[in-house]
Amino acid sequence: MEVSIIAIGDELLIGQVTDTNSGWIARHLTPFGWKVKSVRVVADDRQEIGKAVTEAMAQTDVVLMTGGLGPTKDDITKQTLCDYFGGTLVLDEATRKNVGKVFERRHLAMNSLTASQAMVPSCCRVIQNEVGTAPIMWFERNGKVLVSMPGVPHETATMMQRAVIPQLIKRFSSDIDIEYRTFVVIDYTESDLAIALSDFENSLPQGIHLAYLPKPGIIRLRLSGMSHSKGRLSAQMDSLTERLHATLGDAIVCDGDHSLPEVIGQMLRERGLTLASAESCTGGNIAHVITEVPGSSEYFVGTVVSYCNRIKRQLLGVPGEVLDTVGAVSEPTVAQMVRGACQLLGTDCAVSTSGIAGPGGGTPDKPVGTVWMAAKCGDRVVTHCAHLPGDRSRVIDRATTEVLKMLLKLLRESGK
Amino acid sequence: MEVSIIAIGDELLIGQVTDTNSGWIARHLTPFGWKVKSVRVVADDRQEIGKAVTEAMAQTDVVLMTGGLGPTKDDITKQTLCDYFGGTLVLDEATRKNVGKVFERRHLAMNSLTASQAMVPSCCRVIQNEVGTAPIMWFERNGKVLVSMPGVPHETATMMQRAVIPQLIKRFSSDIDIEYRTFVVIDYTESDLAIALSDFENSLPQGIHLAYLPKPGIIRLRLSGMSHSKGRLSAQMDSLTERLHATLGDAIVCDGDHSLPEVIGQMLRERGLTLASAESCTGGNIAHVITEVPGSSEYFVGTVVSYCNRIKRQLLGVPGEVLDTVGAVSEPTVAQMVRGACQLLGTDCAVSTSGIAGPGGGTPDKPVGTVWMAAKCGDRVVTHCAHLPGDRSRVIDRATTEVLKMLLKLLRESGK
Repeated sequence: MEVSIIAIGDELLIGQVTDTNSGWIARHLTPFGWKVKSVRVVADDRQEIGKAVTEAMAQTDVVLMTGGLGPTKDDITKQTLCDYFGGTLVLDEATRKNVGKVFERRHLAMNSLTASQAMVPSCCRVIQNEVGTAPIMWFERNGKVLVSMPGVPHETATMMQRAVIPQLIKRFSSDIDIEYRTFVVIDYTESDLAIALSDFENSLPQGIHLAYLPKPGIIRLRLSGMSHSKGRLSAQMDSLTERLHATLGDAIVCDGDHSLPEVIGQMLRERGLTLASAESCTGGNIAHVITEVPGSSEYFVGTVVSYCNRIKRQLLGVPGEVLDTVGAVSEPTVAQMVRGACQLLGTDCAVSTSGIAGPGGGTPDKPVGTVWMAAKCGDRVVTHCAHLPGDRSRVIDRATTEVLKMLLKLLRESGK
Repeated sequence: MEVSIIAIGDELLIGQVTDTNSGWIARHLTPFGWKVKSVRVVADDRQEIGKAVTEAMAQTDVVLMTGGLGPTKDDITKQTLCDYFGGTLVLDEATRKNVGKVFERRHLAMNSLTASQAMVPSCCRVIQNEVGTAPIMWFERNGKVLVSMPGVPHETATMMQRAVIPQLIKRFSSDIDIEYRTFVVIDYTESDLAIALSDFENSLPQGIHLAYLPKPGIIRLRLSGMSHSKGRLSAQMDSLTERLHATLGDAIVCDGDHSLPEVIGQMLRERGLTLASAESCTGGNIAHVITEVPGSSEYFVGTVVSYCNRIKRQLLGVPGEVLDTVGAVSEPTVAQMVRGACQLLGTDCAVSTSGIAGPGGGTPDKPVGTVWMAAKCGDRVVTHCAHLPGDRSRVIDRATTEVLKMLLKLLRESGK
């Protein structure tokens, strides 16, 4: 089954908001073998929306639309859908009740504009929004389906999972089997990896493809296979997985589309080890990415963000002489930061960073992007100085990835 | 001038990567009065790319293309551009040199695949990529321009700013003046705000529009005006700005498209106050969003992420009895956490959070989404218990926003 996505909103086209809905939808439809043919972002404009709907309905079986709803936007989108599918705006009692419930739950008072959200095209079937006020509207024409959803990401995600995806599955059944295998690879550039895997790629059986998905510091490899015989496909994917491991060895950090923090968390959990972080230039981002993982409280104890030298000295025990001589952005500083963190927070492992994220603060010998980092596991401490490109947020992200890779390698070595 | 954006990549259409380039580009072209008409995401497929290019070139003056380049993808995109603009792939010596330079800088060895990046369509003008290997390619046809850029976000952003935008400005000059004013508003729902501003909106002069851009916890209002007389437009925008302030008063947190952390940072800087955070369920995210702001080291001292009770007790002084009786997710805990943070880190202000981000850990009386938070400024401490909807990452984001709003209000009151 082929799908088009239309994301509506002036705010998307001036870039004040990034469209994350389309990616989420694609990510959750792909496993069912449905193919997202195209994503289109259009303005809150009757003509533009109409054009996009007409084209999308012509090109694919299903059109998923996000945005263009909500109290201040309703009219254009709903009217345009009435124009295309025929019908007029009518009051939907169930929607009115639902809007009321939502407001009650949020301890907010209804008002005339919110009430207008209960007006829906007479030509659609309404799916009540369980986490917001804008209704989900299901239209059908010539065996094709268009579903209009709100633009608020968590509302779209929740209602896609609770209602839209299940109802699409019931409505359309995919006739081919699809299987994906993802692998997280480190220590390769994209092109080096492509060369290492050229034989592998050239010998891929019909219907199976390999994709490279680089992320700062890591590359995800995705094997995607399509077949009419599920059994055969799985067998093929198994043997290809084996070959990949044989070819890349330790460079494959894990099977599956997992993040570095997830991989590290799994290792720590398996070994009953605990982790802390001592952060200067990453400013808490390491702790953030680690604690984004559900269940991280099993192994993650805590963090000291020491954004000023006084804290590095008082809490992490970095000697004043070190700070006064070689400075905060130095090997002895980050080495003491991991030791200090393990001691203060009582953990087996720790990571630390101290660097110049920019845009200010750079010097000739320590330019912006200079980041010292350390990882500690048991008695072993490793340190590294990286010179990271890009702006402030990129330096922070990259330093976070790099120091987590250091910890990962340390955990692997100590595990052998 | 009207612009189309084409983002190329299978990884975007299966949602494994989110297209942030298009938003970035739109955000940076809009101030010049250029209008992004549509964004289209297409697969790494010769036919799909060809179709998108043909349509986009027909509809707008400028087409900006990202992705579909890089060592493992080059062929399809470059061949398709040769098909459309005419020409063949030829070796570009300057590009070969540049690729070499980049690899040297990254201490990596060249390889055949990377070398192939130096092959470019004979029909384009090459702009050397100063931060990556994939060249930027500038095509012209019938007075229209297509620029093909790599998909790596920081490469696109850097080269857009250094080369593509300046060269587009030289090539096209916008004939109308555009002015934007953005305001950050708190304490209103979108619909209540729309009602409060209905008179204002209805009386907007021709060519000036008001847009609502809700974000968790805040709403950004954007006034956009177009005119042929710059002077008149600015005067109109000034008086409208005055009227907005008169209507919304304190609900306007700041003029300009600033984030809460930026607004708070500015207030702290002006008053010479320092800030710390003590985080449990937000796991360092508060520190992260605060330290994302350049110059935050002027007022931000540090953080203790106390992901386990032992740390809450030992470092932040939360009494064991409190943790044993009312528990970690409680008012006395977060109240002591801010006091403990100010004391331990020696700051004037602090924020704290303790809650259940989920998916696990919920109980009947403290379900997932229950978050206690506190803010301290001088001697004043305020606490609040929020019940936040959504998944783990949304609870973390929302709790971060809510507690920063508490601090903002505290700072305002203490400033009066």
